[in-house]
This record gives sequence, structure tokens and C-alpha cells, in this order.
Amino acid sequence: MTSKIITTVKVALESTYPIYIGKALLADPSLWQAVLKTKRVLVVTNATVAQYHLAPLSKGLAQFEYDVVKLPEGEQHKNLKTWQIILNKLVEKNYHRDSTVIAFGGGVVGDISGFAASCYQRGVPFLQVPTTLLAQVDSSIGGKTGINFQGNKNFIGSFYQPQAVVMDLDTLNTLPRREFSAGLAEIIKAAMLADAHFFIWLQKNIAAMLVHEANSLAHAIATSCRIKATIVVQDEKEHGPRALLNLGHTFAHAIESTTDFQQYLHGEAVAIGLVMAAHLSQMLGLINEVAVKQIQTLLKAADLPITLNKTVDPQQLLKAMSKDKKIVGNKLRLIVLEKIGKAVILEDINPALVLQAITACLV
Amino acid sequence: MTSKIITTVKVALESTYPIYIGKALLADPSLWQAVLKTKRVLVVTNATVAQYHLAPLSKGLAQFEYDVVKLPEGEQHKNLKTWQIILNKLVEKNYHRDSTVIAFGGGVVGDISGFAASCYQRGVPFLQVPTTLLAQVDSSIGGKTGINFQGNKNFIGSFYQPQAVVMDLDTLNTLPRREFSAGLAEIIKAAMLADAHFFIWLQKNIAAMLVHEANSLAHAIATSCRIKATIVVQDEKEHGPRALLNLGHTFAHAIESTTDFQQYLHGEAVAIGLVMAAHLSQMLGLINEVAVKQIQTLLKAADLPITLNKTVDPQQLLKAMSKDKKIVGNKLRLIVLEKIGKAVILEDINPALVLQAITACLV
Repeated sequence: MTSKIITTVKVALESTYPIYIGKALLADPSLWQAVLKTKRVLVVTNATVAQYHLAPLSKGLAQFEYDVVKLPEGEQHKNLKTWQIILNKLVEKNYHRDSTVIAFGGGVVGDISGFAASCYQRGVPFLQVPTTLLAQVDSSIGGKTGINFQGNKNFIGSFYQPQAVVMDLDTLNTLPRREFSAGLAEIIKAAMLADAHFFIWLQKNIAAMLVHEANSLAHAIATSCRIKATIVVQDEKEHGPRALLNLGHTFAHAIESTTDFQQYLHGEAVAIGLVMAAHLSQMLGLINEVAVKQIQTLLKAADLPITLNKTVDPQQLLKAMSKDKKIVGNKLRLIVLEKIGKAVILEDINPALVLQAITACLV
Repeated sequence: MTSKIITTVKVALESTYPIYIGKALLADPSLWQAVLKTKRVLVVTNATVAQYHLAPLSKGLAQFEYDVVKLPEGEQHKNLKTWQIILNKLVEKNYHRDSTVIAFGGGVVGDISGFAASCYQRGVPFLQVPTTLLAQVDSSIGGKTGINFQGNKNFIGSFYQPQAVVMDLDTLNTLPRREFSAGLAEIIKAAMLADAHFFIWLQKNIAAMLVHEANSLAHAIATSCRIKATIVVQDEKEHGPRALLNLGHTFAHAIESTTDFQQYLHGEAVAIGLVMAAHLSQMLGLINEVAVKQIQTLLKAADLPITLNKTVDPQQLLKAMSKDKKIVGNKLRLIVLEKIGKAVILEDINPALVLQAITACLV
């Protein structure tokens, strides 16, 4: 099978880097010859990704001198100890500055590897090869790296841009259906906050995406990445507009923490959070009921949950929200919709309204 | 005593920041009001520095909400464990992104604190308040942070610029005489590699500096910082010209490692390394014997060693030099002098000549 780059996106941050999106890219030696600037490469992955996709990548990297390190899987291993596994390997194998670290996996692999690459000898070249839809549209773009510390999510990390991002759609074929849908939540979020046309496009194409139609997927991923990149470029170090990307996320983090991170995948919590943000926007008189329905319908069509089980206490959820590190002072500061395709930051929101928006999602 | 800013230097890197050099600066609240952009401050220091100089700094910081964390002293504690002491304190005391980390001490405190500040929540504001001459003229300028890892010096770290550097000359009064002279070595190095006029100025003023005459010291520190900043600005991430700052240092690192880091302070090893670099430059026909003598005389006037004990094996030193991470490939790549005031990078140097330059310093 010949490889095919379906689309590329250019991200212009401190250093401009390309995002390649296509099929059969992993096994294509010419792609890696073009992308890699060093002879030595450390591939950081985990056992699951390696089992399904290391064979094609090994074929693609045949011309390079590379080692593979497999990290333990799961958010609970996103810590200093796992980060040191990568650093120990780099030292043990005598890697110098002219070496590239490739993050080959989902968001956890990407975040830890990026942080290790940014620290090793004060920074070595880094490539993202995200293998989940969520990592492709979200964590691999924007340069955030990090690990959890003392129970705090991403408390230790850096801003470090990859030299390129390679997204092979074939890696999505082995992704569990629930995780695939969780990735779609971030794509829908991108449309909601910045691009009404893209929202309409998604309404028409979500079914094709669910059966992995390559061109639709590539278009949706590229558009999401462009939206995220455009916002991140304005605000690389996260002081202002980047907050817009948190649409639905303050709700989502609270949903995740009050359900002990057991019940919902992050993207599923985001889907419910997006509906809560939509309800809140309606209550504030910003969008109408039709828009709320359209949002619910699209999320549902993507096989995502849009309601919360009644066992969750809305008061507890509100309390969890005010603990979110993105809240400044004691004011509730949330992202709401002015319309589908335009999000705004709203300060000093009445907590009673937020409680109402949460309750509207309970069944 | 009223404080007095004697001179300021502007460093224009990613973000421009000022270096304040003066007397009684620590206890001056108006300086800290001007320099600090946040209400909360974590002061990172060690027991020795705290004993002598925390009282005036506490007076200066009275308007701020601050905590103090004391690190164990010495290069052997420049590791992940000590780095975590800072991060643990930041988490324990619930520090947010709107907090500043102040490195208050020598190079080790500065390097570890800077790395912690660069990682905590992906980066919080950072100030350098170097209390040793070496840290003032060397490690506090240029944005290098780091810790040792698996026996490798500064293998884990980042490039992270401070928001400002505050140098209070009064902190030098408690510095052991040997450490003071070690700092002078880096000042002399700066003159040798970039500024012949400054070298002549040093010949005339080294005696005044040794008795801590404030204006001479301020001028010498400021000039060294300007020289370093000018080079670093051209090469923030250390790919080219920054190597010039390593004049004498490949020799020095080898001297330090072959004497197990016991016999010489870093600056003392640098002094001997500078003489070796001078001999090598003469052997290459670049400078004459008079220049070598001038270099030896100035270093000696600064109370620095210029010869090495015969117990050191030159062959072993040469071997240690080829292990230096700054050497690319297997070629000996060293910084030599074209004249006093101009250093150049020379590739592919004949190891026999290097051995001769080493031997010229053995007595």
C-alpha cells in the first residue's frame, strides 16, 4: 500500500512546524527521511500501541538508528517515575543532543515524552505521532507537555513545540469505539467555539466519520487542528484567548473528579460539559433553544453521552468547578457561546445559573 | 544605609530583562516593588546564604507574601531530589501561576531553582539574586537551568530566562576569598575572549577589585554580563557562537574530573584552563609569548592558580577532554585566542599540540 498524505496543516508558533495527516504514513521511509533531522531516534510508546503499530513504524524507520522504550499505560503512570524511564534510556544508550524523541501513542505518551525531550540536555528535537483521535486533535497541538504531581494534573511540565506532527489515520482502526467518539467531542467543541460552517459540515459528515471514511476524517482533524493552532498562536503561553479552548472543560473536569475518573472518558465528560455550557449560554440569553438542540443532536450522533446520571450531586459538581485551577480568584469564569461558532470568556457568572445548567443535564 | 543601583545591564533575549547591580539592594522595598510582578514569592536559598543575608532580603520583601525554602548545599545535591523539595513546597503552600520563584544564592541554587520555576505549572516568573561573584558573572546570565543526572552534569534542565537579575555587592563581603577569586576567573575569561580594552582595564583595577571597591566591581561585573549577554543573544539555544564562552572550559572540566572535583574550585580550574588555551594559541602561532605572560600575570594578580601539580597525568587529562559533551564527533574542537580580546572556535586540533599545552602548565 502506498502512503498518502491527505492534508497538511502549518502551525506557526515560536518555530513553525507541519502536521501531516494521511494513510500508511508510518511505514513510509521517505516521509521519515523528510521529517527527521537526526540519525538517532528514541521511540517512546506503550505495549498496546507497539503491538498494533510498531511493525509499520519500524519499516519506516529502517534507515535510522533507533531504540524503543515502552511506558506503563494509563493516567496513573503519568508521573515523575515514568518520565525518568525515558531519561534513563536516553542516558543509558548514550543519546546526545543530535537525537530525536518520537512520542508514539496517545495523550499520556505525548505529554510525558514531550516533557522528557524538553528537559534532556536542555532540549532535544521532538516529534509527535499521535495514535488516538483525541491526541490528534487535542494534546498533540499546542506544545503543552507535562506530568501529574502530588495528585495535581499536569502540575509539572513545559511548553515545548514538536518539529512536526505525523498523524496516520490507520492507527485509528484499532482504537476502541468509545475512545474514537471521545475524540469526536473535541472536534465538535472546536466547531462550536470557532467555526459555524464546520459545525454544519460535521452535521452532514459525522456518520461517514464514524465509519472512518478517510477524507472526511482528514478534513475534520485538519480543521480542528487549524482552529486550535490559530488560538494557540495568539497565546502560546496561555494567558488569554487560549482559555476559549476550555469550552465545556470546567464542567468536564468537575464531572470527571466527582465520578472519580471511573465512569467517563475525558471526551465523554467534555460532551456533557459542552451541553451544560450550551444550556448556560441559553440561560444567559446568548443562544436559543434550537442551537442547544443542534448541539445535543450532533454529540448524540457521534455516539457521545449528553446527560448525567442523577446519582451525581449538582452542588458537589459546582464545588468541584470552583476548585479548577483555571478559575481566577473566587469568581466563576467560564467559556460560553455567543452563537454556534463563537465562544467568549465570561467573568463573574452567577453560580445559581451554573447550577441550573448542570441540573438541566441530569436525567 | 540607602541602597544604590550602581549600574544596570539590559539583556534582550526572548524577553528582555534588566540586571541591577548595586549596594544594599536586598533590603530596599522600592526595588522589589519595581521588580516583582506578583504578590506571592518563594525564596529558594541555603542555610549559609540565609544566615548572612536573609535578614536584609526579608526587610526588602516585607510587603510581599513569601515563604523560604532552604536547599542542602553543594554540587552533590544538585539533583532531582533537591529539585523536588522546591516543587513540593510550591504545591504544599498552594502556589499558583501568579507567583515568583527567587533564586537567592550561588550557581547551584540558581540552576535548580530556575529549572523548578520553568517546570512548575509549565513555568512561573523567576528572579535571579546571585550571591557569589561566579553566579553574578556567569550562571545567572544566559537562561541555562539544570540539575545533574546519573553522574552527568546538567543533563536535565531547560532554557528559561529570569524576569530580572538583582546583584547586591554586599553579598560578596561574606564570600570566602578563594571563591571570590574563582569568580574573577570568569571575568578575566570574558575580557580575553571578547574585549581587549576590558583586559587592560582589569590589569589596572584587579587590585581594587580584590579589596571589593564597589565601583570597580560593578563595572567589571556589568562588562562581563554584557559580553556574555551579547554572545548568548546571538545563540540562545546554544548551537554556535555560545561555544566561545567555553574558552578554557574544556581544559577546566578535564582538570576538575581528573582531580575528582576535590582539589580546585571551578573558577580555579578555569584559570589553569585559560593558561592552557593561551599556550595552545601560541603553539598554533595565533598569539605571542608576551600575550601569554600578560594572561598569566593577570590571573596570578587575581590570586588564581596558573599551574597544575605534576601528579596529574597529561594523557589522562587529554582523554577526559575528548569525553566532554561539547566535543562533536571525535575531533578535538576547542576555543583558542586569535589575540587577547578575540576568541575563535577551532575544529580538528592535533591532540599532540593539546598535550603540549597541558604539559606547559605542569610544575
